[in-house]
Amino acid sequence: MDSFTVATGSTDNMIDITGKVSDIVTASGMTSGLCTAFVPHTTCGITINENADPAVKKDILKELGKIVPRSDGYLHGEGNSAAHIKTLMTGNSVTVIVESGKLVLGTWQGIYLCEFDGPRTRKIYVQTVSKLI
Amino acid sequence: MDSFTVATGSTDNMIDITGKVSDIVTASGMTSGLCTAFVPHTTCGITINENADPAVKKDILKELGKIVPRSDGYLHGEGNSAAHIKTLMTGNSVTVIVESGKLVLGTWQGIYLCEFDGPRTRKIYVQTVSKLI
Amino acid sequence: MDSFTVATGSTDNMIDITGKVSDIVTASGMTSGLCTAFVPHTTCGITINENADPAVKKDILKELGKIVPRSDGYLHGEGNSAAHIKTLMTGNSVTVIVESGKLVLGTWQGIYLCEFDGPRTRKIYVQTVSKLI
Repeated sequence: MDSFTVATGSTDNMIDITGKVSDIVTASGMTSGLCTAFVPHTTCGITINENADPAVKKDILKELGKIVPRSDGYLHGEGNSAAHIKTLMTGNSVTVIVESGKLVLGTWQGIYLCEFDGPRTRKIYVQTVSKLI
Repeated sequence: MDSFTVATGSTDNMIDITGKVSDIVTASGMTSGLCTAFVPHTTCGITINENADPAVKKDILKELGKIVPRSDGYLHGEGNSAAHIKTLMTGNSVTVIVESGKLVLGTWQGIYLCEFDGPRTRKIYVQTVSKLI
Repeated sequence: MDSFTVATGSTDNMIDITGKVSDIVTASGMTSGLCTAFVPHTTCGITINENADPAVKKDILKELGKIVPRSDGYLHGEGNSAAHIKTLMTGNSVTVIVESGKLVLGTWQGIYLCEFDGPRTRKIYVQTVSKLI
């Protein structure tokens, strides 16, 4: 297992971690299989979305804020229940196919750490499993 | 890695791809392990849901359209921000267990490509990884 | 593949299944790889979220009920369309990294079966795949 950290910089943010995950796959020397990137946190998620127009990230984060308001009569005393709910919607991991030694992503796809309760320094764990030949 | 394409036919749609994924697992000759189906796009997702009553698909797509309106003051110029957000909620891949050479799905489960910005022709990538015996 | 069942007790509930999944990983004797826990149902999901304050579960379930109302002009005759939609948002499986023979989870993370149409007895399937050494 490999890992790295990312500083998220603001309350809500999406940080492109594609390069860091890709470097781990390259360093593993694997040819074909699966790569899982996992966040060991409960108020941030991980997803794959548009890597071109930064307006997409802004639209995603703003709309999630409308769907899951930061204040809505929550019981949890830390005041970050909305972040827990957005994490459930986003998911805790992504699994990407590896072929010919590289992550197989679409042209417009990037892997994003989705911060919903920052700014914080977040960990990302990465595991690769090879296909039996 | 294997792949196939599907024509999605309308703006919002859920297309059952269970048979195509299952055929890839059968052709692989694997006995036991994991199968990941992944979409290399950012405005469609992939999920597992009810395969019996087609009304469920209609309810899902209509309600997602209420939760994430197509127009809501988005910044992204292509006009498909709602599709990007629904993709985040749905997820980019499904991972299904393989046992005795077959996908292990519940009686009412089918694998669906979820189109949120069609009609388009979409690609699905499938990777299998066997358990070590 | 291993499996176990859980009685969910109420209409909406989140049941901590971390211990049961962890026991399967330990019994497998694996050292390093991936573990996927999968629900073969279409009205319950599986996710990873806060394992400390039980108020977080209450906030999650209540807010999901606001976002996806139980009655909203749905077509599906069984009356549980909201549960199907929440399942899409939550996801059908979680994939967790295994290292040194153990599930690698964050301090505050637990694996939860998310019941959206209970009470029922639900099945969870667990598959482990080892990394090639």
